[in-house]
Amino acid sequence: MSTPITFAAPHAFLGARPGDRAAAVCVAGIPLDIGTTNRAGTRDGPRAIRAAARMLTDGRHPVTGVDPTGLDLSDLGEFEIALGDIAASLARIEEQAAGLNHLLAFGGEHGVTLPLLRALVKRIGQPVGLLHIDAHLDTSEDNFGQPFAHGAVFWHAITERLVDPKRMIQVGIRAPAWPEMYDWTRSQGVTILAAQDVHESTPAAVAAQVRAVLGDGPSYLSFDIDGLDPAFAPGTGTPEIGGLATWQAQGILRRLGAVDWRGADVVEVAPAYDVAEITALAAATIGWEYLALLAARG
Amino acid sequence: MSTPITFAAPHAFLGARPGDRAAAVCVAGIPLDIGTTNRAGTRDGPRAIRAAARMLTDGRHPVTGVDPTGLDLSDLGEFEIALGDIAASLARIEEQAAGLNHLLAFGGEHGVTLPLLRALVKRIGQPVGLLHIDAHLDTSEDNFGQPFAHGAVFWHAITERLVDPKRMIQVGIRAPAWPEMYDWTRSQGVTILAAQDVHESTPAAVAAQVRAVLGDGPSYLSFDIDGLDPAFAPGTGTPEIGGLATWQAQGILRRLGAVDWRGADVVEVAPAYDVAEITALAAATIGWEYLALLAARG
Amino acid sequence: MSTPITFAAPHAFLGARPGDRAAAVCVAGIPLDIGTTNRAGTRDGPRAIRAAARMLTDGRHPVTGVDPTGLDLSDLGEFEIALGDIAASLARIEEQAAGLNHLLAFGGEHGVTLPLLRALVKRIGQPVGLLHIDAHLDTSEDNFGQPFAHGAVFWHAITERLVDPKRMIQVGIRAPAWPEMYDWTRSQGVTILAAQDVHESTPAAVAAQVRAVLGDGPSYLSFDIDGLDPAFAPGTGTPEIGGLATWQAQGILRRLGAVDWRGADVVEVAPAYDVAEITALAAATIGWEYLALLAARG
Amino acid sequence: MSTPITFAAPHAFLGARPGDRAAAVCVAGIPLDIGTTNRAGTRDGPRAIRAAARMLTDGRHPVTGVDPTGLDLSDLGEFEIALGDIAASLARIEEQAAGLNHLLAFGGEHGVTLPLLRALVKRIGQPVGLLHIDAHLDTSEDNFGQPFAHGAVFWHAITERLVDPKRMIQVGIRAPAWPEMYDWTRSQGVTILAAQDVHESTPAAVAAQVRAVLGDGPSYLSFDIDGLDPAFAPGTGTPEIGGLATWQAQGILRRLGAVDWRGADVVEVAPAYDVAEITALAAATIGWEYLALLAARG
Amino acid sequence: MSTPITFAAPHAFLGARPGDRAAAVCVAGIPLDIGTTNRAGTRDGPRAIRAAARMLTDGRHPVTGVDPTGLDLSDLGEFEIALGDIAASLARIEEQAAGLNHLLAFGGEHGVTLPLLRALVKRIGQPVGLLHIDAHLDTSEDNFGQPFAHGAVFWHAITERLVDPKRMIQVGIRAPAWPEMYDWTRSQGVTILAAQDVHESTPAAVAAQVRAVLGDGPSYLSFDIDGLDPAFAPGTGTPEIGGLATWQAQGILRRLGAVDWRGADVVEVAPAYDVAEITALAAATIGWEYLALLAARG
Amino acid sequence: MSTPITFAAPHAFLGARPGDRAAAVCVAGIPLDIGTTNRAGTRDGPRAIRAAARMLTDGRHPVTGVDPTGLDLSDLGEFEIALGDIAASLARIEEQAAGLNHLLAFGGEHGVTLPLLRALVKRIGQPVGLLHIDAHLDTSEDNFGQPFAHGAVFWHAITERLVDPKRMIQVGIRAPAWPEMYDWTRSQGVTILAAQDVHESTPAAVAAQVRAVLGDGPSYLSFDIDGLDPAFAPGTGTPEIGGLATWQAQGILRRLGAVDWRGADVVEVAPAYDVAEITALAAATIGWEYLALLAARG
Repeated sequence: MSTPITFAAPHAFLGARPGDRAAAVCVAGIPLDIGTTNRAGTRDGPRAIRAAARMLTDGRHPVTGVDPTGLDLSDLGEFEIALGDIAASLARIEEQAAGLNHLLAFGGEHGVTLPLLRALVKRIGQPVGLLHIDAHLDTSEDNFGQPFAHGAVFWHAITERLVDPKRMIQVGIRAPAWPEMYDWTRSQGVTILAAQDVHESTPAAVAAQVRAVLGDGPSYLSFDIDGLDPAFAPGTGTPEIGGLATWQAQGILRRLGAVDWRGADVVEVAPAYDVAEITALAAATIGWEYLALLAARG
Repeated sequence: MSTPITFAAPHAFLGARPGDRAAAVCVAGIPLDIGTTNRAGTRDGPRAIRAAARMLTDGRHPVTGVDPTGLDLSDLGEFEIALGDIAASLARIEEQAAGLNHLLAFGGEHGVTLPLLRALVKRIGQPVGLLHIDAHLDTSEDNFGQPFAHGAVFWHAITERLVDPKRMIQVGIRAPAWPEMYDWTRSQGVTILAAQDVHESTPAAVAAQVRAVLGDGPSYLSFDIDGLDPAFAPGTGTPEIGGLATWQAQGILRRLGAVDWRGADVVEVAPAYDVAEITALAAATIGWEYLALLAARG
Repeated sequence: MSTPITFAAPHAFLGARPGDRAAAVCVAGIPLDIGTTNRAGTRDGPRAIRAAARMLTDGRHPVTGVDPTGLDLSDLGEFEIALGDIAASLARIEEQAAGLNHLLAFGGEHGVTLPLLRALVKRIGQPVGLLHIDAHLDTSEDNFGQPFAHGAVFWHAITERLVDPKRMIQVGIRAPAWPEMYDWTRSQGVTILAAQDVHESTPAAVAAQVRAVLGDGPSYLSFDIDGLDPAFAPGTGTPEIGGLATWQAQGILRRLGAVDWRGADVVEVAPAYDVAEITALAAATIGWEYLALLAARG
Repeated sequence: MSTPITFAAPHAFLGARPGDRAAAVCVAGIPLDIGTTNRAGTRDGPRAIRAAARMLTDGRHPVTGVDPTGLDLSDLGEFEIALGDIAASLARIEEQAAGLNHLLAFGGEHGVTLPLLRALVKRIGQPVGLLHIDAHLDTSEDNFGQPFAHGAVFWHAITERLVDPKRMIQVGIRAPAWPEMYDWTRSQGVTILAAQDVHESTPAAVAAQVRAVLGDGPSYLSFDIDGLDPAFAPGTGTPEIGGLATWQAQGILRRLGAVDWRGADVVEVAPAYDVAEITALAAATIGWEYLALLAARG
Repeated sequence: MSTPITFAAPHAFLGARPGDRAAAVCVAGIPLDIGTTNRAGTRDGPRAIRAAARMLTDGRHPVTGVDPTGLDLSDLGEFEIALGDIAASLARIEEQAAGLNHLLAFGGEHGVTLPLLRALVKRIGQPVGLLHIDAHLDTSEDNFGQPFAHGAVFWHAITERLVDPKRMIQVGIRAPAWPEMYDWTRSQGVTILAAQDVHESTPAAVAAQVRAVLGDGPSYLSFDIDGLDPAFAPGTGTPEIGGLATWQAQGILRRLGAVDWRGADVVEVAPAYDVAEITALAAATIGWEYLALLAARG
Repeated sequence: MSTPITFAAPHAFLGARPGDRAAAVCVAGIPLDIGTTNRAGTRDGPRAIRAAARMLTDGRHPVTGVDPTGLDLSDLGEFEIALGDIAASLARIEEQAAGLNHLLAFGGEHGVTLPLLRALVKRIGQPVGLLHIDAHLDTSEDNFGQPFAHGAVFWHAITERLVDPKRMIQVGIRAPAWPEMYDWTRSQGVTILAAQDVHESTPAAVAAQVRAVLGDGPSYLSFDIDGLDPAFAPGTGTPEIGGLATWQAQGILRRLGAVDWRGADVVEVAPAYDVAEITALAAATIGWEYLALLAARG
């Protein structure tokens, strides 16, 4: 009676111990999805991502040899939300994120990043730098009148001074947008790297630019799975063609070990549109790569 | 340049003329889905149902020979909703439904029935009888604290006196539920016909019972697609096994031409979970059967 | 080195020997699908049906104990057709069907039945009786101006006197249609049994009625897979809700061993819309049940 | 911070407490699938069934009002198996099942029933009666030379005297089979009820017959999901058309509360072939109905 | 009552006004698909593309800031075709395309390009230059004897002098083909750029070569979606591995604003094989990029 | 009656003649899949690959003009295996591969490579060089205690001296693994090229490195389809993000015509997870590219 078979998935992400809020790093799912402007269903993202992560439990990082499960890691399960009520949900999420040492969250929609940043900034007492991988700017003041829709998250994060826009870089941007949004975002000091720029550059060059923007201050990673191309991540609500390949995302992230990471989220996985779990696996692997960065710094 | 090919779908339901609120019968889609307690995505129901209805445009009713498109029919498109805000959405829906002569609505989630009933009852000045086909009672006071979630719609409809519970019959009920909900519902005077009862009876007998409950007063049909079995309607958010076959639903409806129908909805089609459009086609056909009842009475 | 594993599918239907036109019974696929009025793709039906038939190769009929593979059976592969040309295709199909002793054909669309009947009637010198299982009458004079579209097949078969309409019965009919089509069909002497009639009767009673209509003359089975409900056969181009369950189709067919069967087809399987091969398996099993009827008569 | 939202699935079946082998009733998944003769993948059955069971957590039984979660219930997670080795896996499964008070197991393939019966019979000291719902007899001496393949499980169970064949009834049988298998099975005293018999009878009559066969002795339920029709359970490896509807299975089971149940399994769910989780939900609900029988007897 | 929600798709492409043949730019769907040599179903392409285009309605071009919907744009709906008759369909298509100022057509199969070019060349009185993105040469004299099959379209276009082969360039070619086809095509003066060449070059270099071949004369874009790799566009009938990524196609097209564009088509989207709408979205976005080129030139 | 239509798939790979073990090159399917550590179902790989190969039958290689079907080629069908028994299956596979002149095998899981190498090395009397394309090292001593699981195949191949590790190169490696496995593999002399290395290099450079490692001795190609990225090959059991694009694999293989190829396999295609046949088509095309290399050398 010994080693469990891979296909019997552990219930917690990478088999982490459940429910210990005092762990050095916590994982949580946040099944909020009611502020989505297109296809629905990211509420089921955390369950799909945890299941797909079963494929990552046997072995260490292939490049660095680092073991993400060597971290002091706990899976807190799903955060509670308020059914059908965005504002109340954001409050509950912030409450549950408060006081954690370090959180890797799986969405849910991108709107969940706002309360996570609120909780983090409240704890550390200063705005964070931000690596934002996405097809969309997400700096609209609202979406169709809803101020806390998923496309407005960084308008709030910037105006609430949760993020230092001069230490914020957006990578993979390519969706139709209003020129005013570009203007406002750039006027705040944010660096925007279009998907086409990434394709016509290299991961090393992009990583260097990210590194330069983030600097040495505390930083946060917000990875919208639609930053990837729909070929690599069909299971999402607002896909845009022309996006990143997974190898590009990995090639960038793996070069960012020196950043002072304080938290991360991977959002917008909508499993009903996924195929053979490839989107969920991409999200799980991005989370795993992030943990490997943490584990590598000891 | 003559007859259009079937597979070139008309943009409006059954090719009805667009946007005439004064039509004798109007069709509208209502893409609200944020009060759903399980799988998401009924926002895309109306689009899928209209597309599937292309298969119903060539011919008349096979039993009665009636032509549903012979009605004075208009498709109003999608009703506007307020993104991420249930209460505001219900208000807008009621506003848009107000004053219509007769509405066949395609959801969206079951919560949309509440403002439709409010608008109808306001116009006709009296509560309606209700044929409610569903796997669920939907008479919970709230779902997870959300009073306007999709499982609470008839608690409101009854307590707001929109529906006369003595003239209300629920058919196909079979989901897990709390005994208190059964008790409350029955105590209001509602007749509950479990799915198992339908299976062990005949459509004719069920129709007779429905007919007796509805009586001669003004009546409304609220058809939750999960009243059908998941084999017949997989594309929905809260499926329950043991449900009705489409032939049973048709066998019941076709015998209800003498009811004084004043409006109807077909809700809870979630296309992301559908297969070969069979759920959307079922919803479209139920709507078409309903229109055939109206057309038959001249 | 002995018994082959079930999941290594034989290349020919039920492992029949390939290419012997002199066999007592031949099987062929007919990948014509360009006269279809709705969803496309029955060209791939024969391949899917043969693959699904791997699940039927190990054992005999569960009720009669008869072994369909005990027949003198050959699989002729796919009949050639003329790409993009209905008339030329019908001619080629008739040519290839000519002179065969007994043919079980897998479509392809329903239009293929016409040349098969032409070849059969030419050989036996008299019209046949017909059991036609379908959601649609298929007695339109044309579809959108195309005389040889799939919905016109029996208009031709009757007017060309290939079928004796007094010995023709249609079972499972339920699609929207024009009253004139019903009138014309009935005026020819055809018996029409709506799906609803089958549901509210029993397989035994339906089989008795079929038996009475077909009488003792030579007869043909034309089984459109959309005679089944979309729940049981989603993989087809013109689905209609309210259709037969597979057990009903089997319950009827198994009681028709005394008919003088001279040929059969199973048509309109469109694998791109299938799920877990259930439609292809239904078609393969219907073919297998038919062969069991032949095998049982010795 | 209160009631969890439905769509945040509990990790254990119905939210049962994990890992307590002393519970009155235990649930376990058994991901063995290498003795399957057709489509593969039941190893993923338990994970899919647990996930689908999230839809059953809110409420009591709609007919009896009984609460299955009121039982003293524990979810043991997945049993360990030996990768690629049937014999060793059976031994390990038996070892893990030994000594449990009452086990509801989710497969995996049907072969897992053998070690479960071995463990049960060893504990209670006498053979059990068996309600076996399936499309297949499963009384082959071997499949393609493999004695412990999934189609041979009851040959072993009978010859090892784990089951009393006079108290064994098979319901839903309809697959192609060899007459010798029928003969041997019947000669042992087993009662065989074909699917067609169920369709042309009623759940009440079938339940009465099951009740008579099982008698008052200790009994076991082995529910192969392919006993259901592929329309209701496409996600399985060896589907056969003409099977049971879920309402029939429920209608039978609900009438069997007086049986002295000692254990049960629901097997052969292959999620890769499932659609919208309907097969997994069927399996979960069958398990839940079984627990409701146990809960009802107090 | 204000801004419509994104997921309530407009019925016309990008919400263009319907049915105005005098618009500066018209969009039309052409559901012809009967000359396809492999998987069927492009008849449903236009409906899927219009639906997917809902994701492009909110914002301007991310690189140029241009607004494609600022064009004088009308959606003409589906062109009529003759069911099951290629020759008659081509005539009808040409008739309907005649006299339009500028047409962006969505197929349907590639064969539709022929009548579109005939209508265009008739109107402008000279052959056009052609950018042909595709996996296939499409310069076969016929396919399986059918002269107007989808693989023969440019044999006709060249021999009918609709296209100036010296101003024709094919990009993305990679399918198995006959050397004689390559020889003939090159002998006409056509430039062929294999997919492998594109991969080992850059979009900028490819665009420069395209620009050089097209020159300053009137030009046409014919974009077969199978020019993209199946990973990016699975929903098509004749996929070939090794194809272009969407970012490459965008990177090329965006550099071709100076071309004298006179019309375009995007063909061969077969939605039954699509996944999460990614192929339809790719086609819609290519059409949107093309309109952005037109809009940018004022 | 002439050219067969493309969509009527030949039953043998590329229409090769069946069952001639004396052919210069043989193709065979090997449906073994019970040693798989994650998602199941490669048993159905060969059937899916042969079906997808119908798309490759009409034409020659687009770059070289070579005709793979010009080889003296035979399709042997599926090799027999022992149901549920790895060791016995490996013995049977070796037996069936023995004595063939040259074998291209389609799996099945990667474990099948071991008996194929045993048979080949026995015949030629010396170890082979190996190009191993894969996400995984596959040099584990066992998987979960099973020595012949699919992740252990090259541990055996190296320790049995079937492969000369100094002439072995692994391309595309990127899965989580144990550092000890990397150490052992490299200590044997194997060259490991990570997927990231391929992405940041060029096919030409990779091919040159492969060429240098393989040298002039007899060589074997083992292509695990999961070497490709899940976007290009979702239909596999142990996907890993960050993998190769098909154009990269083709770009490498096409430059390896000078290698002394003695055999090849393409493994791990699991059709239940495939989409629109793209994985099966990738596998078929890789096989076809390999045959083109053989055909080019005359």
